[in-house]
Amino acid sequence: MTEKTVRVAVETIHSFMIDVFTALGVPRDEGKTCAQVLITSDLWGIESHGVGRLKMYYDRVKQGILSTTTEFEIVKETETTALVDGHNGMGHVISARAMQMAIDKAKQYGMGSVAVRESTHFGIDGYYPLMAVKQGLIGMAFTNARPSMAPTFGVDPLLGTNPIAFGAPTDEQFPFLYDAATSITQRGKIEVLDRAEKPTPAGWVIDREGKTAVDTEAILAGLKRKEKAFVPLGGIGEKMGGHKGYGLATIVEILSASLQGGMFLRSLSGFNPEESPQAHHLGHFFLAIDIEHFVPLEQFKKTTGDILRTLRNSTKSPGKERIYTAGEKEWLMEKEIRAQGIPINPNLQKNLLVMQEDLGLETYNFPF
Amino acid sequence: MTEKTVRVAVETIHSFMIDVFTALGVPRDEGKTCAQVLITSDLWGIESHGVGRLKMYYDRVKQGILSTTTEFEIVKETETTALVDGHNGMGHVISARAMQMAIDKAKQYGMGSVAVRESTHFGIDGYYPLMAVKQGLIGMAFTNARPSMAPTFGVDPLLGTNPIAFGAPTDEQFPFLYDAATSITQRGKIEVLDRAEKPTPAGWVIDREGKTAVDTEAILAGLKRKEKAFVPLGGIGEKMGGHKGYGLATIVEILSASLQGGMFLRSLSGFNPEESPQAHHLGHFFLAIDIEHFVPLEQFKKTTGDILRTLRNSTKSPGKERIYTAGEKEWLMEKEIRAQGIPINPNLQKNLLVMQEDLGLETYNFPF
Repeated sequence: MTEKTVRVAVETIHSFMIDVFTALGVPRDEGKTCAQVLITSDLWGIESHGVGRLKMYYDRVKQGILSTTTEFEIVKETETTALVDGHNGMGHVISARAMQMAIDKAKQYGMGSVAVRESTHFGIDGYYPLMAVKQGLIGMAFTNARPSMAPTFGVDPLLGTNPIAFGAPTDEQFPFLYDAATSITQRGKIEVLDRAEKPTPAGWVIDREGKTAVDTEAILAGLKRKEKAFVPLGGIGEKMGGHKGYGLATIVEILSASLQGGMFLRSLSGFNPEESPQAHHLGHFFLAIDIEHFVPLEQFKKTTGDILRTLRNSTKSPGKERIYTAGEKEWLMEKEIRAQGIPINPNLQKNLLVMQEDLGLETYNFPF
Repeated sequence: MTEKTVRVAVETIHSFMIDVFTALGVPRDEGKTCAQVLITSDLWGIESHGVGRLKMYYDRVKQGILSTTTEFEIVKETETTALVDGHNGMGHVISARAMQMAIDKAKQYGMGSVAVRESTHFGIDGYYPLMAVKQGLIGMAFTNARPSMAPTFGVDPLLGTNPIAFGAPTDEQFPFLYDAATSITQRGKIEVLDRAEKPTPAGWVIDREGKTAVDTEAILAGLKRKEKAFVPLGGIGEKMGGHKGYGLATIVEILSASLQGGMFLRSLSGFNPEESPQAHHLGHFFLAIDIEHFVPLEQFKKTTGDILRTLRNSTKSPGKERIYTAGEKEWLMEKEIRAQGIPINPNLQKNLLVMQEDLGLETYNFPF
């Protein structure tokens, strides 16, 4: 193990992740799905949801709160809708199947949606709309998550970072792909600041006094003890629109929980009342819209591309060289990561070596 | 006309609005729909979209850019979807019919959505999801709007305030009803500050230098000259998540324009290249989800109510007495407005008298 970040080829990390999932007991085809979701995050430069999370899944399997074999039970199904129970299997496997169901229904009837209960962490939210985009549809994906965000005028961490993901095809080399938490930030970014020994920007985190917290180390400890909470998009209070971010997070909670009769808010903590780890009981909601039911796909792609080009080509704020559209930075990053490899920091190196040894994956020769 | 704000009974204002629309040439039944949307906004205390906007519709009819007779053309229709052309008729009439189509499709097939082109200003966005909620469904409504918001790292007003509205039924006396611009604020709030002779909060509006503008009078003039623009939810730049609000506004633009092959961004200004008024060519997107296709309605209502009660009953930030959920403030306001009447400010009094005289609506005896 080295003391600095080193880059490892995408193929190596991808293959290692498949082998880890398989060695843990995930059927190989399903392990490929899990690894595909994670590597997509790494390719987009979103380190918080890629190989950096592999040890989390490993730990949860070892704790017995994540099932490596996925029982995908269709509880109810109609022309355009389905309700699925994931029985605490692999969230990526459950979600990829659920999204594909929504897509297939949309292709036939115009729209499709699938609500999922008893699921687990499914990786990056944007992966699922991208499945729809690749098949020429609009896709959306919503999930609740363990409680960490406070409502406007409150201080308890209750809502998850509850992301919204939306994808649409364009006539460009890359799609419009939005994937963002409804909080200003999330744990992964605080951890990055911690490693860099930097303070957390004012306004991102609220403490029990209703004030902004900036001590990064204290924030990480406080999040665990429920003494600190993330702030909704728009900030503390209503002045800058914090109630809008809070409302969006609530929409995601309703779509993820109420349509499947499942758990919500505090019940998603991953701990039982005795503070022992338990399944997270997450809920998701996937939605697909078939474009050809409205207009020809090529026309839709051109209109969407024209909207995005108009935005990008408009007047820059002085000192800013470029205006981006959602999904563009990830597309640029993917080219860089494929060329240079995935950055593996010292902490992650340690984790990879632990899993390699424990699971006997001796064929890998990491440069650390 | 008085020099101060006076309150007028809800029934009087409601009836007057119906008579104004009818006198302008809107068929009486359709005029009732327009007035119903506007009075709902007044009842919720959202003065910017109620009777305060009546003169805007009046002016647009007089300018010949808003058609009082609505030709609702169904261009394409499938089991779950429809594409509608509104031919620049009354936006409220077009939208109420389109939303009902989405609801009817959802009742039968589980989901329904309708894209609308060549529409006009449809009033308050939240009215349409509420139609779905009253019939036991989830409803969503999206619309683009005349350009006023700058993309992240840009300064041109390109996107509209592009609101998102979402409604879900609950087991309480009022629904969950979210209706918010994807910008931090909108013109109506700047006008309120102008009347009160107050500065605009820093961070709401961006100028050509990429800096925040706070001089309210200069902002109102600058918005007209496209020298000032609203800032996306999340603020200027990316630090507090401004790119998320910008991304959400882009989603609304895509849903509102690309599915109907219509106009977008700068083309929605309401002016032709010679700076003469023209139709706004707005697009909308309405979506309904039938809850019973997933879970029993009563179960959904209870889960949603439980989520909202948990949020409201959580620990308040010191100094804050209450945590609200979306739609709650509007419900509280409606009780107050019904008891006390709708506040009519001096400028609005003048406008009502102008319309009353011009249209010969002599039976109204306003207290001003």
